[in-house]
Amino acid sequence: MRIAHVAPLWESVPPQGYGAIESLVAELTAVQVADGHDVTVFASGDSKVAGNLHGVGTAALLADPDIREPEVYRMLQLQEVRDRAAEFDIVHSHVHSNTGCMAVPALRGLRTPVIHTVHCFFNKDNAQLFRRFAAERYIAISQDQRSRLPGLNYLGTVHHGVDPECFPFGTAADVTSPYLVFLGRIRPDKGVHVAIEAARRAGVPLRIAGRIKSCDRTYFEKRVEPYLDDRTVSFLGELDFAAKTSLLAGAAGTLMTSLIPEPFGMVPVESMACGTPVVSLRTGALPELVRDRVTGFLADDAYEMASAIHMLPAINRATCRQHVTSAFSIRRMADGYAAAYEFAARH
Amino acid sequence: MRIAHVAPLWESVPPQGYGAIESLVAELTAVQVADGHDVTVFASGDSKVAGNLHGVGTAALLADPDIREPEVYRMLQLQEVRDRAAEFDIVHSHVHSNTGCMAVPALRGLRTPVIHTVHCFFNKDNAQLFRRFAAERYIAISQDQRSRLPGLNYLGTVHHGVDPECFPFGTAADVTSPYLVFLGRIRPDKGVHVAIEAARRAGVPLRIAGRIKSCDRTYFEKRVEPYLDDRTVSFLGELDFAAKTSLLAGAAGTLMTSLIPEPFGMVPVESMACGTPVVSLRTGALPELVRDRVTGFLADDAYEMASAIHMLPAINRATCRQHVTSAFSIRRMADGYAAAYEFAARH
Repeated sequence: MRIAHVAPLWESVPPQGYGAIESLVAELTAVQVADGHDVTVFASGDSKVAGNLHGVGTAALLADPDIREPEVYRMLQLQEVRDRAAEFDIVHSHVHSNTGCMAVPALRGLRTPVIHTVHCFFNKDNAQLFRRFAAERYIAISQDQRSRLPGLNYLGTVHHGVDPECFPFGTAADVTSPYLVFLGRIRPDKGVHVAIEAARRAGVPLRIAGRIKSCDRTYFEKRVEPYLDDRTVSFLGELDFAAKTSLLAGAAGTLMTSLIPEPFGMVPVESMACGTPVVSLRTGALPELVRDRVTGFLADDAYEMASAIHMLPAINRATCRQHVTSAFSIRRMADGYAAAYEFAARH
Repeated sequence: MRIAHVAPLWESVPPQGYGAIESLVAELTAVQVADGHDVTVFASGDSKVAGNLHGVGTAALLADPDIREPEVYRMLQLQEVRDRAAEFDIVHSHVHSNTGCMAVPALRGLRTPVIHTVHCFFNKDNAQLFRRFAAERYIAISQDQRSRLPGLNYLGTVHHGVDPECFPFGTAADVTSPYLVFLGRIRPDKGVHVAIEAARRAGVPLRIAGRIKSCDRTYFEKRVEPYLDDRTVSFLGELDFAAKTSLLAGAAGTLMTSLIPEPFGMVPVESMACGTPVVSLRTGALPELVRDRVTGFLADDAYEMASAIHMLPAINRATCRQHVTSAFSIRRMADGYAAAYEFAARH
């Protein structure tokens, strides 16, 4: 098939820094090209993709300090997709928050079928837009996400996937001095403070890694920094892929404490791919990702999480990795999208 | 004619606070309704207009702290305009920066002719978008603006207008203790520091009024605050309409010191409507607004401005007001748009 991906423009594909959607587009494209498809990616001009690149602008928006109106590049990108739509059998749009939603009205009325993967949270603002355009074709990234805005024309749910081969497993967890991991943005709704409370209650050291935006500095100083002592709670900053997977692979467990309903979570999937079980609050898509008492534990608060941390040795690490291989592989994701493309092309 | 205005959504029409485009849409609508046109305004749901209101959302975006994705309301608005386009003879879109530009691609391909008044600065980002859609119908708000991005399908230039009756003239300037005025946002590119330098060189007190955004606080503290002493330079904060016009009417002159090419300037027009001459840097549209040595002076720097301030008594205040009545009245603006609508409807 001739496939066009419409990626976000904030980061390149794949991203230089953090960019979950840009990573996913890069990996999905690589599999689709390997499967023999003719894939074109509409992405920032500095992207490097397995298929054909249709560059928009010269650099990722985040990388260009001279850009005053980033929104117009999204508008130009969508027009360029329209201009070339007849060259493709399917247009696969990756909808993110804010200006990302513009793809939904902007890509209407093309002869080529358009599929929108909804990567963002639904909120009362964008829900109005999605409802207005309910008849467009959507892919949800979790059942939980989909249940929060029923009534859209969902072709299906396709969970994100990873390539398990990219994650180290042989590395057994450090059993002599076990530690827990929190990986993610350091901000209130990610619940780092809950992870700290659970780890301290359980008496197991916690290693925290992630980006702090300047607007979240006060949160960090008030709710995280007071607990840092390099023995019980430590902060490692933002890690690259190798350091991140090494940290995950060595951990006794990964704590997921998001206080808002995440539509998906790459960290728990990556953790399990390393064989590391997950102790998570029962929010958003997490119950779809973690098999309770099999690949980790679901809990309602920091107190329950602390109890679960003590039960982590009972989890079989090979089962965690197997769960990812069977349920969250990039292969499975690519097959899910292939089925959606076929359906869209026929209906 | 059946006219639809597409207003910004940040402020209501007319605005509660500062909102130049929203003010203009309110006044233009009032004149058009008085002229017998059937006018519908697509604006925030709390707007109050002379014609029919098509409300988008319940409140102005700036007034609703719960809004997380303001962009989607612009998208919804533009779709609602499309849905109702057949009910109108003309769609008059008011294009502002950032998401405001979305109107250009989003309103293409309608049977009803669409005219875009470009209220924003051109920059290297949005210029790409306007060039891509050069064939749409544009109205420039000054010759200077138009000269900065030639090649668009401009139907013409229509200067903004005011109702001179709304501005006090009888109030003679305070000749016993003359003062100068700077009115506008307190930020580097508006050149408040240049106005302070010119007034101090001339030895005439300067009264500064305007909003300070939090991001410009440092500029205010470094370049403005050190000169404040309530005698030579004073800061009055943000003023309402009555206080603003009273300040202008009592002044010996108004200083315009924008360091960037403003596509228009309401302050000099309002100042002249009060009979108060303008001393301005020769930037952007200012030479189109101020008649040099007739309604004020054009200068190249603070030094020249200081010399001009000494010549202010030579300017006839009645001539300043007459200039606004003949060249920048709301009537003249409405006639300019009526001609553009007629042209668009025929071609």
